[in-house]
Amino acid sequence: MPHIPLQEDLPGIRGLVAYRPDTGRALYELAEALLRSESTLSQAERELIAAYVSSRNECRFCASSHAAASRHLYGERAALVDAVIEDLESAPVDAKLRALLVIAAKVQENGRLVTPEDVAAARAEGATDREIHDAVLIAAAFSMFNRYVDGLATWAPEEPEAYAEMGRRMAEQGYAGRFRQVAHAK
Amino acid sequence: MPHIPLQEDLPGIRGLVAYRPDTGRALYELAEALLRSESTLSQAERELIAAYVSSRNECRFCASSHAAASRHLYGERAALVDAVIEDLESAPVDAKLRALLVIAAKVQENGRLVTPEDVAAARAEGATDREIHDAVLIAAAFSMFNRYVDGLATWAPEEPEAYAEMGRRMAEQGYAGRFRQVAHAK
Repeated sequence: MPHIPLQEDLPGIRGLVAYRPDTGRALYELAEALLRSESTLSQAERELIAAYVSSRNECRFCASSHAAASRHLYGERAALVDAVIEDLESAPVDAKLRALLVIAAKVQENGRLVTPEDVAAARAEGATDREIHDAVLIAAAFSMFNRYVDGLATWAPEEPEAYAEMGRRMAEQGYAGRFRQVAHAK
Repeated sequence: MPHIPLQEDLPGIRGLVAYRPDTGRALYELAEALLRSESTLSQAERELIAAYVSSRNECRFCASSHAAASRHLYGERAALVDAVIEDLESAPVDAKLRALLVIAAKVQENGRLVTPEDVAAARAEGATDREIHDAVLIAAAFSMFNRYVDGLATWAPEEPEAYAEMGRRMAEQGYAGRFRQVAHAK
């Protein structure tokens, strides 16, 4: 049961955004800019970074929904998402994304753990300054979303099927439109 | 030295917001709504929660600047800020704010650590649902800001005097206006 009264049919972040729409608007704008705007990292890759960090924080709602979004976007290569979440080291992920995921994992723990060597390793695999920036901010932002969703004990569906449909909508419709739907669901 | 090239005279979050203003705008809107909008928690109390979480994450820039903002807002009671950061248990802080800081400290570690008993204890001291929500989201948001600022190794002044002036401006002018200044500093 959530720690504060939230609208019952809205899981995870959605119930919180309906509860306080002014902060919710800023949070959805951040997600839209980070995960969906023009970038040399694909949407599938960015959703995978979000899912990977959320999985490391053991946030079921965020990990399941962003993994589902990433699977939908990867299409035939969807198994990569589960391989990365299960064990990054053995996952068949390309070298640049692997280096960015290593940085994201350090940020998930504490930003101070990222070393010049981690950044140099990502650059050696072709990562740009902007990609390094974005990997750090995605990992930092999900360290927030995970804590917000779990710190108030929001409801998270248990059935994987619920997330498949949620992930498809997130991947196809994004977050800006979702904010309007949730804010008006009150 | 920062991990990516940032404008040299802008410390901490400010250099990052100038680097990527579209995410920066959402981040400053979040800070403005959380720390400055109408609330039954004073601005001084909210800046203290931000400083306390940032201190626990060992983020010098965020901890020093938000502690300075809180000190400025507490005025004659400014010593409370340092007492809380040094040792919450012995600090002469009122019971409701203490209970909210206990929740914030758990969120700083992982949101899943917040128990129904922590929330009941805050309610017993008079905390409202909205105050509990806001304490959780402030702690979650600074878990992001700290990781963003430190994950990219941004510049943070070492002299305490630099933060006193910064804190005064944050307390008096807030974050919405700061965004416009920084985004136009490019």
